[in-house]
Amino acid sequence: MSPESPTDLLRHPHHDGSACYAAPGPHRLGAAVPLRVLVPDTADGERGADHVVLRAVRDGEPHLTPAVAGARGPHGTWWHVDLVLVNALTSYRFFVGGPHGRYRWLNAEGVHERDTSDGADFLIRADEQPPSWVADQVAYQVFPDRFARSAGSADRSTPEWADPMPWDAPVLVRGPGVERQWYGGDLDGVAERLDHVADLGATVLYLTPVFEGRSNHRYDAVTFDTVDPVLGGDEALVRLIDAAHERGIRVLGDLTTNHTGREHAWFRAAQADPDSVEAGFYRFRRHPDDYVAWLDVPSLPKLDHRSAELRARLYEGESSVVARWLRAGLDGWRIDVANMTGRMAADDLARDVARRIRATMLAERPDAWLLAEHGHDAGPDLTGDGWDGTMDYQGFTRPLWVWLNGGAPDVADRPGDGEQANDGEPQRVPHGLDFLGLPIDVPVLPATSAVGTMREVHAAMPWAAQSASTLHLDSHDTPRFRTIAGGGTDGTIDVAGRGRRRHLLALALQMTMPGVPSVFQGDEIGLTGTTGEHARTPFPWDRDVWDTPTWEAYRAWVHARTGSVALRRGGLRWVHVGADSLTFLREHPDERVLVHVVRAAVEPLALPLDLLGGALEGVLVGAEARVDAGRLVLPGAPGASAWRLGARGLAWR
Amino acid sequence: MSPESPTDLLRHPHHDGSACYAAPGPHRLGAAVPLRVLVPDTADGERGADHVVLRAVRDGEPHLTPAVAGARGPHGTWWHVDLVLVNALTSYRFFVGGPHGRYRWLNAEGVHERDTSDGADFLIRADEQPPSWVADQVAYQVFPDRFARSAGSADRSTPEWADPMPWDAPVLVRGPGVERQWYGGDLDGVAERLDHVADLGATVLYLTPVFEGRSNHRYDAVTFDTVDPVLGGDEALVRLIDAAHERGIRVLGDLTTNHTGREHAWFRAAQADPDSVEAGFYRFRRHPDDYVAWLDVPSLPKLDHRSAELRARLYEGESSVVARWLRAGLDGWRIDVANMTGRMAADDLARDVARRIRATMLAERPDAWLLAEHGHDAGPDLTGDGWDGTMDYQGFTRPLWVWLNGGAPDVADRPGDGEQANDGEPQRVPHGLDFLGLPIDVPVLPATSAVGTMREVHAAMPWAAQSASTLHLDSHDTPRFRTIAGGGTDGTIDVAGRGRRRHLLALALQMTMPGVPSVFQGDEIGLTGTTGEHARTPFPWDRDVWDTPTWEAYRAWVHARTGSVALRRGGLRWVHVGADSLTFLREHPDERVLVHVVRAAVEPLALPLDLLGGALEGVLVGAEARVDAGRLVLPGAPGASAWRLGARGLAWR
Repeated sequence: MSPESPTDLLRHPHHDGSACYAAPGPHRLGAAVPLRVLVPDTADGERGADHVVLRAVRDGEPHLTPAVAGARGPHGTWWHVDLVLVNALTSYRFFVGGPHGRYRWLNAEGVHERDTSDGADFLIRADEQPPSWVADQVAYQVFPDRFARSAGSADRSTPEWADPMPWDAPVLVRGPGVERQWYGGDLDGVAERLDHVADLGATVLYLTPVFEGRSNHRYDAVTFDTVDPVLGGDEALVRLIDAAHERGIRVLGDLTTNHTGREHAWFRAAQADPDSVEAGFYRFRRHPDDYVAWLDVPSLPKLDHRSAELRARLYEGESSVVARWLRAGLDGWRIDVANMTGRMAADDLARDVARRIRATMLAERPDAWLLAEHGHDAGPDLTGDGWDGTMDYQGFTRPLWVWLNGGAPDVADRPGDGEQANDGEPQRVPHGLDFLGLPIDVPVLPATSAVGTMREVHAAMPWAAQSASTLHLDSHDTPRFRTIAGGGTDGTIDVAGRGRRRHLLALALQMTMPGVPSVFQGDEIGLTGTTGEHARTPFPWDRDVWDTPTWEAYRAWVHARTGSVALRRGGLRWVHVGADSLTFLREHPDERVLVHVVRAAVEPLALPLDLLGGALEGVLVGAEARVDAGRLVLPGAPGASAWRLGARGLAWR
Repeated sequence: MSPESPTDLLRHPHHDGSACYAAPGPHRLGAAVPLRVLVPDTADGERGADHVVLRAVRDGEPHLTPAVAGARGPHGTWWHVDLVLVNALTSYRFFVGGPHGRYRWLNAEGVHERDTSDGADFLIRADEQPPSWVADQVAYQVFPDRFARSAGSADRSTPEWADPMPWDAPVLVRGPGVERQWYGGDLDGVAERLDHVADLGATVLYLTPVFEGRSNHRYDAVTFDTVDPVLGGDEALVRLIDAAHERGIRVLGDLTTNHTGREHAWFRAAQADPDSVEAGFYRFRRHPDDYVAWLDVPSLPKLDHRSAELRARLYEGESSVVARWLRAGLDGWRIDVANMTGRMAADDLARDVARRIRATMLAERPDAWLLAEHGHDAGPDLTGDGWDGTMDYQGFTRPLWVWLNGGAPDVADRPGDGEQANDGEPQRVPHGLDFLGLPIDVPVLPATSAVGTMREVHAAMPWAAQSASTLHLDSHDTPRFRTIAGGGTDGTIDVAGRGRRRHLLALALQMTMPGVPSVFQGDEIGLTGTTGEHARTPFPWDRDVWDTPTWEAYRAWVHARTGSVALRRGGLRWVHVGADSLTFLREHPDERVLVHVVRAAVEPLALPLDLLGGALEGVLVGAEARVDAGRLVLPGAPGASAWRLGARGLAWR
C-alpha cells in the first residue's frame, strides 16, 4: 500500500466477488463458477503475467487449475477459469506468474510477492446467499423515542421507568438517568415522517427495538410478544410497515438474542422457580440472584442457547419471535450483540444460533435480511450460512474515524462552499474523545493505514457478506461523526463548523463503497454528539435550524448511490492511496465509476485513461476532472468526487 | 519487514507464547495468565511506549485491560498484565501507544501502525495443551522399506504386489512401478540401526506406516490390526519400540484416517454387501464400483466419518486402532492427510474427528503426541482441542525453499570448509523442479518474503501448536532439500556439491526455529532426489560414501539444539531481515541465543549489545562474532551461526 508511482496499484492484478469477476450466484454445491482475473499490462507495455493459476481448497486440499488468457484491452488482459464449488464454503486465490519470473499471489487482501496463509483467500459459498435486494439499499436508522411524536403520543401515560422530557430539552451525555429520559417519540410519528426518509433517498428503515423495555432504548426487553404500547402497540408497527412499503421502503426490526431485560417474563419465571423451563433459558451461578449477565450488568441477564425451549420460543419454527414478526411485515432482523450471542465460557454456539435463525427466516420469508451487530472482526462468523452481513464498524467506521477525525489536517484550508475560511493554517483540534475505550484521543492516521485495515478486515468475509453489511459513520452507540470530524460537541446541529466539511468526505465514502450505507437519524442535517447517548438528540423538525449544505450533500450522494449500479453492485479496485487521498474504481459490467477523496491538498493525480479502461462520461457528484493528453487529472484540492467512466471492456466475452 | 536501519525490528515491541512472555501452561478455564510485553526504548533513548493495553476477546466481545510498566533495562521495558481465560480459546493483541502519539497494535504477526482484524491475534487455549516433552525433541523420519534390512529380512517371501530390488539399485523417479519397488527394509533393521539415530542426536523416531498395504509406502492399508509381516510383524514393532525407549527415543506411528486401501478388509466387506455396516464407512455414488476416493485415485477409497462404527473401530474408545497401538508402546500418532480427513462435499467433520482422536489419546495415554499432516495452512485446524501440531510445510518448508534454492545467489563464492570453490561467480542453477504444482521453477525470493510468510502462517496458530509442529526441509513426499538447494539431482549422495553448502543454512534454521525439527533419513549424509519417490533411496550404510561435512554439520546443529533450552523452548524475536540474511533471537528465562544466517555476502551487521540484552558468551555453532565499542558485529560472509548471549533481564520480576 505504498505505491511508488501513481499507477502502481492500478497495475495490480485484480479479482473480487462482484459481477465483473465472478458469475453472479446463487450457485449450487458442485457447480462450476466462471471467474475472471484482470491483469493490467506492465508499465513497459508487456502483458502483465505469463501464468495465472487458480488455487482452491477442495475437501481441505489445495487444487490448482490454470486460467486461460482471454481478451486483452488497453486496461489489461482478462484471464478466465472455472471454480468448482466442491464444498459449502470455498476459499481460493490466484497465482500470478511473470513476466520475467515475477512471483505473486492475489488474494482478497491484494497482491503479495510471497506465499501467504489461506486466511485472506477469497471466499465463496454454495447455495445460500444474502437476499439479492439488499445490496441496492440505503438504510436509515431510527431510534423510536427520539425521531418523531405523533399527535396521539400526547395521550399516552408516562411509563413507570421514565423521566418525561420536552422534545427540545438537551439529552444527558452519560451517567445516571440517561436511560430514563423519555421524549415520547412513537411509531405513528415515524410513519408521519416517512416523507423525510424518502426525500433523503433511503430505502430501508432500520428501527431500534420496539418491544417494551424499562428504558428509552428498549434493549432490555420485558417481552418479545407485543410492541410497546407507549410506541403505539402492535397496530402502530403494522401501520408503519404498511406506510413504508407503500413508499417502497423496507423495514428492519431489532432483536436482542444475547440477553433479555431483568423484568422479562421469562426471567421472572426463571427467578421464581429454579425448576421452571425458563430457568434453563439463563445461567444461574446461584439461584435466584447470581446469574450471568451481559458485561456483568445485572439488569441484562444473558440467554443460554443450549435450551431447546428458548430456541423454539425465540427463533426456531413458525411460532418463534423471529418468524411471527416477519409475518407481521418486517423485512428482516438486525440482531443485537450477535457477536456474543451463544458464547459463554466453554460454550460457543454462536454460529449454530445464526444458522438456526437463518433457517427459520428462510422458511418464513426467504428474502428477509439477517444483519448481525458485531463491534469488531465479524469475518469468522460470516460463513454465509448464518448472518447475511454485519454492522461494519471494524472494516469501515474505524478506518474513517482515524483518517478523517478532528485531529487530521483540515480539509478547508481556503474559502469555499459559502463557508468562512479558518485562518489558513491546518487546524488540529483534539476533541477529547477516547478511541473506543483506548486511553488516547482518536488517532490521526494516513489513508494507507485506513485502507490497510479495510482490506484486511474485508478479506476475512465473503464478498456477498461484505455487500450485505452496513456502512456506518456512527450510530446510536457512538459519538456522531460530525463531532469526530471536529465539527461540534454540544449535541445540537453544527451549522458553522468552522468551515469544516470533512464529515462530507466520510459521507462520500459511505455512499460509494461496497456494503449498505446506513444513516443514523440526524446525521443528514448536521447533528453532533460526544457519546452514543449524547447522539440520541430528538430530531429537530424545524428545517430552519438544519445545516443545509450537509442536507444537500446527503441528498446528492444518496441519490448518486441509488442511481448507479456500479456504486451499488460494482467491484472495488484501488487506484491510488496516499496519506491524504484515496482513489478507487467501482466496476460493474454496465458502468464504471471512479471515486476520489482528498483530506488535505495533494498534487493532482494524473491517471492514463486507457489503464482506467474508460472515457470520462461526466461528474456524478463533486468537482470536474480534466483530460489532458490521454490522462485523467483528478483535483488535488480537499473534497470528494465521483465520475462515471463508462464500461468499456467490462463485458464478459 | 523492510527495516530502514539494522535495529528497526529489534526496537519493535514483542510478545509471543514462550516462557519469557506468558506464564507456562496448562491453564484452567477462568484462570488469570500473567503476560509480559517487551517494549524497547526508542533510538532516542525514550521509553518506547506511554500505554500498553491488552485487548482480549471474551464471549465474542473485545475487552481492554491496561498493562503496567515494570522493570526497565537497557533492552527495554517489561509491561505486565493478566489475561483471564474466559473461553476455551482466547484471541488477544496489544495496543502500544506513544511516545508522541504513535499508534501501534502488536499481534502474532508483528507490529501494525493501524487497526487490524482479529485474524493474526495471539491465541491461547485453556485446559488442553500439547505434551510438554514434545518441544524438546528432534525427530528422525524413517521410511521402513528403505532404511535398513535386518538379518532376518532375507528369509521373508516377496509380497504379491512387490518387485524385489537390490539395496543399491536406483529407485524410480516417478511413473509405473514406483510403488512396487521393494527393497525389503524391516523394523528389526531399524532397531539394529538405532545407534545411528542416537549418534545424530534425534530423540523421536517417526515411522511411516507399518500396517500391511499393497505398496512399499503402505499408505494404502489393508488392515490396521497387525503390523505387516514383511516388516517383521507386531513383535518386531514392539522390539523396535522397546529398543528405542531404552535409548530414550520415543516412537511415533503413522495412521491414515482419510482413506484405506482398496483391499482393506473394511472396503472388501463394503463392496460385497451394500447393507453391511462397512458400506457406511465409505461413500458410494453407485455401489459397488463408483465411490469417493482420495484425489479420485480408485485404490484409495475415502472414509466417511459420519459412521459411528467407523469412529469406534478407528479412534473412539479403548479398543480402537488409535488406543490399541498406544498401549503397544507408540508415543503418538502422525495422522496422514489430516487436512482432508472428515471433509467431503457439504460435510466438514475434520475438527470433530481431531477432537475425538485427541480424547481417546488423552484417555489412553495423556502424554501422547498427535501430529497432523497438512500441506498448506493448518492454522484454522489448530484450535488446541484436536491436533497438537502440524507438519509445517507452509510456514517453514516453503519459505526455506524459496530463500535457499538453487537459483539463489550462491553461498560459496569463495573457498572454504575444505570445498573446491566454484569459478567465483554466483551460480544460478535452475534445477528444473516445478514448485509444488505451479508451472514455474522454484522461485528465488528474498528473506523478507520468506519471513513474511513464516510470520503470517504462524500467526494463525497458537504458540503451543507451533511448538508442537514439525519442521521439515523435505520428506518422503518432496524432492530432497539438497537437490532443491542445487546440490545434485541423481538420487545418490552429493559429496562435491560444487562447493554449495546452502542445505546447511537450511539445516541451521531447522535446528534453531520454534517447532520440532524432523530429519528425513538420509538428509544427514547428503542424499539427493528430485521427487518424493526419488528421495526414497535406500540408506547407504557405507560411511565412506557419506558426505562427511554434511554429517558433521548435522551432528553439530542437532546437539546444539538439544543442548540449548533457548533453542528448544525460547521465544522468537526477529532482529533483522534483509534479502540475503536473517537474524533472530531465541529467548528463554534461562538463556538467550542469537542466530544469524547469510545466503550471499552482506555488510556485517552491528547490533548494540545493550539492545540485544546480553553479553556475548560464546559460539554455539558457526563463526565467531566480534564485539566492537558495545556492538556485536555479525559476519557478513555466507554461513550460519548461533551465539549464546546470556539471559540478563529475562527473569520475571
